[in-house]
Amino acid sequence: MKALVYKGPRDVSVTNVPDAKIEEPTDALVRITSTNICGSDLHMYEGRTSVEKGKVLGHENLGEVIEVGDAVSRITVGDRVALPFNIACGFCKNCERGFTGFCLTTNPGNAGAAYGYAEMGPYSGGQAELLRVPFADFNCLRLPEDAEEKEDDYVLLTDIFPTGYHATELACVQPGNSVVVYGAGPVGLLASYSAILKGASKVMIVDRHPDRLALAESIGAIAIDDSKNDPVEAVTEMTNGEGADCGCECVGWQAHDPKGHEVPNETLNNLVASVRPTGSIGVVGVFPEKDPKSPDKLMKKGKVEFDFGVFFSKGLRMGTGQADVKRYNRHLRDLITTGRASPSFIISHHLPLDEAPDAYRHFDERDDGWTKVVLKPNG
Amino acid sequence: MKALVYKGPRDVSVTNVPDAKIEEPTDALVRITSTNICGSDLHMYEGRTSVEKGKVLGHENLGEVIEVGDAVSRITVGDRVALPFNIACGFCKNCERGFTGFCLTTNPGNAGAAYGYAEMGPYSGGQAELLRVPFADFNCLRLPEDAEEKEDDYVLLTDIFPTGYHATELACVQPGNSVVVYGAGPVGLLASYSAILKGASKVMIVDRHPDRLALAESIGAIAIDDSKNDPVEAVTEMTNGEGADCGCECVGWQAHDPKGHEVPNETLNNLVASVRPTGSIGVVGVFPEKDPKSPDKLMKKGKVEFDFGVFFSKGLRMGTGQADVKRYNRHLRDLITTGRASPSFIISHHLPLDEAPDAYRHFDERDDGWTKVVLKPNG
Amino acid sequence: MKALVYKGPRDVSVTNVPDAKIEEPTDALVRITSTNICGSDLHMYEGRTSVEKGKVLGHENLGEVIEVGDAVSRITVGDRVALPFNIACGFCKNCERGFTGFCLTTNPGNAGAAYGYAEMGPYSGGQAELLRVPFADFNCLRLPEDAEEKEDDYVLLTDIFPTGYHATELACVQPGNSVVVYGAGPVGLLASYSAILKGASKVMIVDRHPDRLALAESIGAIAIDDSKNDPVEAVTEMTNGEGADCGCECVGWQAHDPKGHEVPNETLNNLVASVRPTGSIGVVGVFPEKDPKSPDKLMKKGKVEFDFGVFFSKGLRMGTGQADVKRYNRHLRDLITTGRASPSFIISHHLPLDEAPDAYRHFDERDDGWTKVVLKPNG
Amino acid sequence: MKALVYKGPRDVSVTNVPDAKIEEPTDALVRITSTNICGSDLHMYEGRTSVEKGKVLGHENLGEVIEVGDAVSRITVGDRVALPFNIACGFCKNCERGFTGFCLTTNPGNAGAAYGYAEMGPYSGGQAELLRVPFADFNCLRLPEDAEEKEDDYVLLTDIFPTGYHATELACVQPGNSVVVYGAGPVGLLASYSAILKGASKVMIVDRHPDRLALAESIGAIAIDDSKNDPVEAVTEMTNGEGADCGCECVGWQAHDPKGHEVPNETLNNLVASVRPTGSIGVVGVFPEKDPKSPDKLMKKGKVEFDFGVFFSKGLRMGTGQADVKRYNRHLRDLITTGRASPSFIISHHLPLDEAPDAYRHFDERDDGWTKVVLKPNG
Repeated sequence: MKALVYKGPRDVSVTNVPDAKIEEPTDALVRITSTNICGSDLHMYEGRTSVEKGKVLGHENLGEVIEVGDAVSRITVGDRVALPFNIACGFCKNCERGFTGFCLTTNPGNAGAAYGYAEMGPYSGGQAELLRVPFADFNCLRLPEDAEEKEDDYVLLTDIFPTGYHATELACVQPGNSVVVYGAGPVGLLASYSAILKGASKVMIVDRHPDRLALAESIGAIAIDDSKNDPVEAVTEMTNGEGADCGCECVGWQAHDPKGHEVPNETLNNLVASVRPTGSIGVVGVFPEKDPKSPDKLMKKGKVEFDFGVFFSKGLRMGTGQADVKRYNRHLRDLITTGRASPSFIISHHLPLDEAPDAYRHFDERDDGWTKVVLKPNG
Repeated sequence: MKALVYKGPRDVSVTNVPDAKIEEPTDALVRITSTNICGSDLHMYEGRTSVEKGKVLGHENLGEVIEVGDAVSRITVGDRVALPFNIACGFCKNCERGFTGFCLTTNPGNAGAAYGYAEMGPYSGGQAELLRVPFADFNCLRLPEDAEEKEDDYVLLTDIFPTGYHATELACVQPGNSVVVYGAGPVGLLASYSAILKGASKVMIVDRHPDRLALAESIGAIAIDDSKNDPVEAVTEMTNGEGADCGCECVGWQAHDPKGHEVPNETLNNLVASVRPTGSIGVVGVFPEKDPKSPDKLMKKGKVEFDFGVFFSKGLRMGTGQADVKRYNRHLRDLITTGRASPSFIISHHLPLDEAPDAYRHFDERDDGWTKVVLKPNG
Repeated sequence: MKALVYKGPRDVSVTNVPDAKIEEPTDALVRITSTNICGSDLHMYEGRTSVEKGKVLGHENLGEVIEVGDAVSRITVGDRVALPFNIACGFCKNCERGFTGFCLTTNPGNAGAAYGYAEMGPYSGGQAELLRVPFADFNCLRLPEDAEEKEDDYVLLTDIFPTGYHATELACVQPGNSVVVYGAGPVGLLASYSAILKGASKVMIVDRHPDRLALAESIGAIAIDDSKNDPVEAVTEMTNGEGADCGCECVGWQAHDPKGHEVPNETLNNLVASVRPTGSIGVVGVFPEKDPKSPDKLMKKGKVEFDFGVFFSKGLRMGTGQADVKRYNRHLRDLITTGRASPSFIISHHLPLDEAPDAYRHFDERDDGWTKVVLKPNG
Repeated sequence: MKALVYKGPRDVSVTNVPDAKIEEPTDALVRITSTNICGSDLHMYEGRTSVEKGKVLGHENLGEVIEVGDAVSRITVGDRVALPFNIACGFCKNCERGFTGFCLTTNPGNAGAAYGYAEMGPYSGGQAELLRVPFADFNCLRLPEDAEEKEDDYVLLTDIFPTGYHATELACVQPGNSVVVYGAGPVGLLASYSAILKGASKVMIVDRHPDRLALAESIGAIAIDDSKNDPVEAVTEMTNGEGADCGCECVGWQAHDPKGHEVPNETLNNLVASVRPTGSIGVVGVFPEKDPKSPDKLMKKGKVEFDFGVFFSKGLRMGTGQADVKRYNRHLRDLITTGRASPSFIISHHLPLDEAPDAYRHFDERDDGWTKVVLKPNG
């Protein structure tokens, strides 16, 4: 089958690899119809992770079930399914409490597995024609009859819509709250969108790319261009000097200041300054345990210079980590099905798999208008 | 009246000051019968805060109401009352949601007021014969008939029992959880005690003072001496390699390593390493917005070198800040009244007010056996 | 001053009564600019309660502060304020946990007080030119600069918007849930509106008055006419045979079947049948401790014939009771201020106080189009 | 194999039946070493349910895994396992949110399955030598090394310890609360025990059997003998006239009044009267959807005459339903392992399987001292 393979820093290509197949009686085999490039794929693309050469990338996968193992009872051939990027067993101590992003079974010795991702287990990704799905009864989200018509919405259930939503859960967003989101990439936009869905009274989003800020405004968020304004001052002013009730970090450790330098603590400390005493912060932007290639001395060891004094004196709370997609994907699917949510406004491109290398390059360079790419491996 | 006054670093004395009195119609005047020296008083005592000379210290106060203002309706003369260290209005945006430690009324321009404390408003402390209590109907906790008999237990409702309990709330301790507490001072001991009260299955507590570790063991906690063992390894081993479900920070920024050097991030990063993926951490040890006298370069600006990468990859959550005493003091009082809780095991000394300066010296030097001092200003 | 006074069953009139005035140092005096007739006023109007003759009615009050007592510090003359129908002290065991609808201070011997209401204390109502507001710092919600422009929205913060919202809180409505609301009166409509604000995926509302059902559809809810369809069947069908995730009771004990007979358990048992196993039900429609005039034998003693077997076997949960308005009114106010919520779509009439008796009659008879009446006592 | 078989009302016998065996690749086969008679078995025993003749009873099962299906990965032969009475798939809409008592897969057309129980699916019970366990990776709770030594404690993890605990969760018991439990049978005793474990300040338990009341007192609960005192008055008096914060129903629809008549609403309405305004009630005593043999006219149709008026005016909340055992069994197991919990104090008899018919008779007659029977099918 054809698949997008990592070959080295800024080097990916579409090649033939052995077909994915059923390996365990609990597996399903899925023919991929949509698979997105994720912002976190770029960390691997840029050579900032330990991902091995030859890995098939792709963890935002949707398709049709074409075969199931003997022990699969719920999922059947022909089902259209959206696959959480987390691969989870459903029965370990973490899964049974809903922490499917921290499964203890699927990536032994660690907590959490994913398709086609550095240090997340041996699983191939879905930027390919076929994908093997472990523990299929647990991991497949079935889609309703309008699955094809709304495929652009449903494919976002695999990662970034739940991830954006997770940011708002970690930040304890309640109806009526004011919320600031740092980062207007796809995740930040969907965190803002989630906050609005939940009834936030005011959502402010900080970025500097005009195309992203325009998208933010199109959904009713207030855009703050941090290349032109101090975002902490802007948020403070828009919240009567109090600070926002809730804050979301949707950038991660490769945060850049407006001049283009990587400053890993930039968004974290801005959030601490932007949120009101007793407020909450949710962090879904990725921070790695180490990054030897970071220009920041502390970050090489996975550390950041954190404004802990202010964090404490304000009595803030913070939740972090990758999203447990299954915690949210049913409800978010239902919002799409009933027409209350339509997250696909962030999608900018639909491309055949062969054009994936080119798409990685554009997306990595934040080229204007390349917000989110959906690959179509089966045409 | 006689009161304990701050005169400068490591210099306090008992002198005559003007009598406390009713100033507002919502005030009560309380004759203090017990008032404790708190570990956080030592930050002021050591000159590490901005507290002004002449300030009467003391925020852990219990006594008898001897006068009330015209607008006080619930509290009456003769009531025995325990006073939360927080001074709160009861009607601001924070108080009405229970965040009485972050009252927006009582310390204008800041969030949170307290008796006799640096940067917590103009209020005199209770290490004195008399104390003025603002918003008395809201701030006084009435005590039952056994108030005198159990005064040693009830006086701990003013700060450290709720503060220890708050650590376990911020750390999301649920029945059956394993919990690690860093710091076996009075707050750490009562955090451990609270975790046990709530049904924790295993409570581990890290310190190096033999008297404190012995107290920890007396309540059923497992003592870990970090001058002899690596505490992270010890916790990991005692939790089947997983790490504790919950962690509590009860030391603060003046944490010392076993060799006696101040290392502000010592306990925080040890907690991140000691807690299992998906776990939670509660921080009640104080971290200031700045400390120019800190030997740590970052801490001078209120920053710490934080293991954010591990914090994120484990998907941890953290809550911080001073305790909202009123959120807990009724229920903790009831546990004392029915005999289910008796936190006074931590009290080591009862002394007349005149001996307070001597007590500050011993407590500050962590002299063996000086765990907790109760002053008796009225004999 | 002029006020609307209860004189007996279906007999109210506007007469002169002594001016409301400051009685306690914690009081404020408010000149009423808007005051609504509530569906629960009709229970009194119809003579189904113990309300005494001569009582000034009206518990949905908004106006301008014209005088404050000596102990009032937050509220000042000139403030525009919306007044929760609950009168609460702010410092009792219930108030301090947010249960301001069950204040132990303001209606001694009971839990909960209100303006102008049967068995809710000696307080006069606000269908009058002036209103005395006890514990003003706690009970007044200050309104922003656009208070006059959006007075129709803000006045609904006094009762029915928070009450509708409370129904959804008791019913545990979360984003993505399906919700059924029984009753499309003002409260039911605002429960539906609240569920949509919170991100419900599907909101179904059961009633039989075409004007109300049309309003329901205007906000995106699905109208179910129970004079034409079995509502349980309709809900079951619209939820793939599962039943709704959440249900709200917004009718109360005077529920009528489609033929016009009072059937007190009609909506309750329909809810039990309409909600899926593991679901939740919120009840804000009033059920009294007794109603000797009820045509239902059990209801005379405050009892209903409840489908407890199904309730149990489905593992349902139910929350009940009048709304603690203060728990919600700040956040709902902010949603109005930022333009995200505009509940005034339910208001059908603005009338001078003199026309109140006529309005009571129309509203009581559910005359077509009389959804919600705002009285303007000061022109 | 030998098994206890239902033959008709008050008629059970131990006979040979075909061996249980692996039927699906996700099954495990368990040799039963302990299996209890449950109070809910008596409903079947007495002929009050639709259970078919020939059914092997027994849903509180513990034993050793002797075979596993091909798709079982976590559980291995030789594991000692405690089996939740609920049989759940782990991947349906209810299971994935933790509602394993309402699994949509294992008992198609209903919500929830169990071993050897009326209307809970085709599964045989474990009062037998062998038991087939579906979805073994999800349903088996592995026990630690001390499994044999503490088998009496661990076997209670299969139902009644989690069920008692569930009552306290549904009743929202928090540290410091006062709690009243109706029913001092095994479940009521373990609800009381759970409340104490969680830090309740006062636990009152209502019953009339001296042996059960004595057990209640042995764990620190306050026994209320309702054959001698009005329980509502007693609770009110012991809570300063306020009522208990929380209430637990652990009797069910076959509640008897002190004179021995079945009164289905006895405990429910007493609970409504015993709990304070704003309080919560948890119901784990069983109420069926219908019981044609009930002496109570309403109960024949599954209805009860419920004090809804008081329930509403107090603003009470109620949760119901069978326990989702997996939600709690890990944590409760850990409390047993660390020695913090030892629920086996309720066990009165250990008997070979052959004596089961005799044991049913004694237990059904509430013979003095027959609190809880453990059967040992394999010696």
